Amino acid sequence: MHLDQATSEQLREQESLLREKYTQFQQENLNLDLTRGKPNTAQLDLSNELDGILNDNYVDKTGTDLRNYGGIDGIAEAKALFAKVIGLEPEDMLIGGNGSLPLMYFCAHTALHHGLRGSDSAWSKESTAIKFLAPVPGYDRHFAACEHLGIELIPVDMDGDGPDMDKVEAMVKADADIKGIWCVPRFSNPTGVVYSDETVSRIAKLGNIAGPNFVVFWDNAYAVHAFEEAAPELANIMDCCRAEGTEDNILLFGSTSKITLAGAGVAFLGGSSTNITSLKKNLGYSTIGPDKINQLRHVKFIKDAANLSAHMAKHAKIIKPRFDAVLEKLQDSLGHANMGAWTKPQGGYFVSFDSLPGLAREIVKLASDVGVKLTPAGATFPYGKDPADKNIRLAPTFPSVREIEKAMDVFVVCVQLASIRQKLGE
Amino acid sequence: MHLDQATSEQLREQESLLREKYTQFQQENLNLDLTRGKPNTAQLDLSNELDGILNDNYVDKTGTDLRNYGGIDGIAEAKALFAKVIGLEPEDMLIGGNGSLPLMYFCAHTALHHGLRGSDSAWSKESTAIKFLAPVPGYDRHFAACEHLGIELIPVDMDGDGPDMDKVEAMVKADADIKGIWCVPRFSNPTGVVYSDETVSRIAKLGNIAGPNFVVFWDNAYAVHAFEEAAPELANIMDCCRAEGTEDNILLFGSTSKITLAGAGVAFLGGSSTNITSLKKNLGYSTIGPDKINQLRHVKFIKDAANLSAHMAKHAKIIKPRFDAVLEKLQDSLGHANMGAWTKPQGGYFVSFDSLPGLAREIVKLASDVGVKLTPAGATFPYGKDPADKNIRLAPTFPSVREIEKAMDVFVVCVQLASIRQKLGE
Repeated sequence: MHLDQATSEQLREQESLLREKYTQFQQENLNLDLTRGKPNTAQLDLSNELDGILNDNYVDKTGTDLRNYGGIDGIAEAKALFAKVIGLEPEDMLIGGNGSLPLMYFCAHTALHHGLRGSDSAWSKESTAIKFLAPVPGYDRHFAACEHLGIELIPVDMDGDGPDMDKVEAMVKADADIKGIWCVPRFSNPTGVVYSDETVSRIAKLGNIAGPNFVVFWDNAYAVHAFEEAAPELANIMDCCRAEGTEDNILLFGSTSKITLAGAGVAFLGGSSTNITSLKKNLGYSTIGPDKINQLRHVKFIKDAANLSAHMAKHAKIIKPRFDAVLEKLQDSLGHANMGAWTKPQGGYFVSFDSLPGLAREIVKLASDVGVKLTPAGATFPYGKDPADKNIRLAPTFPSVREIEKAMDVFVVCVQLASIRQKLGE
Repeated sequence: MHLDQATSEQLREQESLLREKYTQFQQENLNLDLTRGKPNTAQLDLSNELDGILNDNYVDKTGTDLRNYGGIDGIAEAKALFAKVIGLEPEDMLIGGNGSLPLMYFCAHTALHHGLRGSDSAWSKESTAIKFLAPVPGYDRHFAACEHLGIELIPVDMDGDGPDMDKVEAMVKADADIKGIWCVPRFSNPTGVVYSDETVSRIAKLGNIAGPNFVVFWDNAYAVHAFEEAAPELANIMDCCRAEGTEDNILLFGSTSKITLAGAGVAFLGGSSTNITSLKKNLGYSTIGPDKINQLRHVKFIKDAANLSAHMAKHAKIIKPRFDAVLEKLQDSLGHANMGAWTKPQGGYFVSFDSLPGLAREIVKLASDVGVKLTPAGATFPYGKDPADKNIRLAPTFPSVREIEKAMDVFVVCVQLASIRQKLGE
């Protein structure tokens, strides 16, 4: 049923049918969850070899015993391996602990309070009202980190090529307090967008527009997380930055959280030698160093780029059917209904659904009331405020295909119910 | 030779003999290092079983797969195990990553900028000149963390029972900007002092003198690191605090860095439920959670308190001969010389040596010039400034007994040379 081509009578009939379906769901005592971008058990099992991989061999190439203290920036072997994942050289890398969020928070905190190029470059010296651009919909943890640091978030729309760069450029030109932008450039959270070459190139130029202390936070969390080889590649932003002379205006992040184990992987940070030197120095005040043994495990397990590709293909084989299930259900029930739009990602962990304006909260509530948990409406926007109340993030990796099909049956009924009721003015 | 009982002639003769010995050392091309409190290879080998201990079993008692996201405060099994190490209940615990320094930095940062009891309790709201008491000699990383946070350090002398509590109490009474004190209460770094019961009891009362936002940073890094069972025990400060109603004025820290692997262990934090709740909330902005898999490894490896004791006895057996070597060399050459004093620790990682005033720098330089690296003079004081220029931290765990003996032969000659030259007015 097309929402705008149906008569009021037809809509009312349909609403009645949907209500019946919904009542049936109520009686099923469902307990389904599409909220978190968590790998499923089969994916986690792919990395069980990590435990026991060391064989009492803890010495690196230089003869250093990695079980002991030393080395704030991680082991050389991990730098070489993960540099390839985000398109850098080993000397551009700092290898951290089990998550990229702590690295991102640390970098923002350092730039804010201590400065990446000496204390005079600290953002807090320039202004007490520092701001970041937040492409929306985006990742709630990025936004929360900024909020906690007292950094204001200014939403800017995402389109199919990445952030709306006309707006981004205009905003950083107009407001010197804007010191950063959050980017998830490949298979963006939650839209799945891969930034176009032009967008990457324009982002690389931002440092020349915004000034020396502006930093692009390039969270390449899904760098190698394509569903198939044909998925679009991401241009190498550091190459672009070096060509523009803006290599100090970017920090790159990544992790193995969705390569090996979520929460027990290895995170990494890349940047210019100026930035890495400064960050290493600052990092030394709050840590003795990262867990080098877990880094060594990861190096021995992942081995090299070819082996990593083969490993990621196994992940893709496990999760693609889950995305297919989401997309088929959406297409079948809403494909010609004008009740919303959604992304068709070629990698990453999410499908982004936009309902008709003003309905996201209602849809999430309807689903929740019959046992299907969705990410709270608004979560993909700073301060939890989606001005159009339309975006819903669907995370289908964790449940089984059957659970996803069931959850999506519920979801589309909720979308239809909310849309029709809105149309009917109820 | 007793410095004050020798004639000038005898001193000059002795200086000449020592200079010859020193010249011999110069020709030996020594490369010895007593700088870092690092475990040695035999100690690290005690924990090799950690790798491969999981046997594809990643599920905790509640059925949760620990390989996945979830749980900001660590796994229940680790809470139960490590609570015993620092004398708390499991619900008082937060289990972190691979180091206690990040936890301590995070707690100080949170108390400073966000407050442990809501934003109104943030130290930065009360004053722009927050201060911490630094018992000296102490641990340089504690001091550096404060410096980086913009917290001023006020030295206060250590004696054989812990910090000079008369002074501590007077200082916190007189200055409301003093918001914390660093304590390494058992086998203190570097003095090896175990705080007396009276000192513990008086520290537990500080919250009632200093006010609600004062925090004792109780870094119990060497809680189970005695050389023999007869070593003095530490009173349970949380029991004292609860009796005084000051349980919100203390945070306790510890780690397995010197139980299992340095840099690849597990760190933990303990405190009142008010503090733990607040810290958990704040922690969620900068991390998704700790490495639960490494926590699980540690739980399976350490098992329980009895097994931990047996494990620590193995460490003691390895390192006690190293401390004995240091103490014998000091006693043999300086025992009746009036050229300095030193501690005789019953646990921990250090011997603290006090030269005659004004000689520490000179002694460290003399030793360094013949290839024996010592911790820089002043390192045990805030801002690297030892006002009496006398304290030198000796860290004998890492080198072999033979290397230690050689290094100490050099050390005592340097002490004697510097002392005699000072006496001679050279």
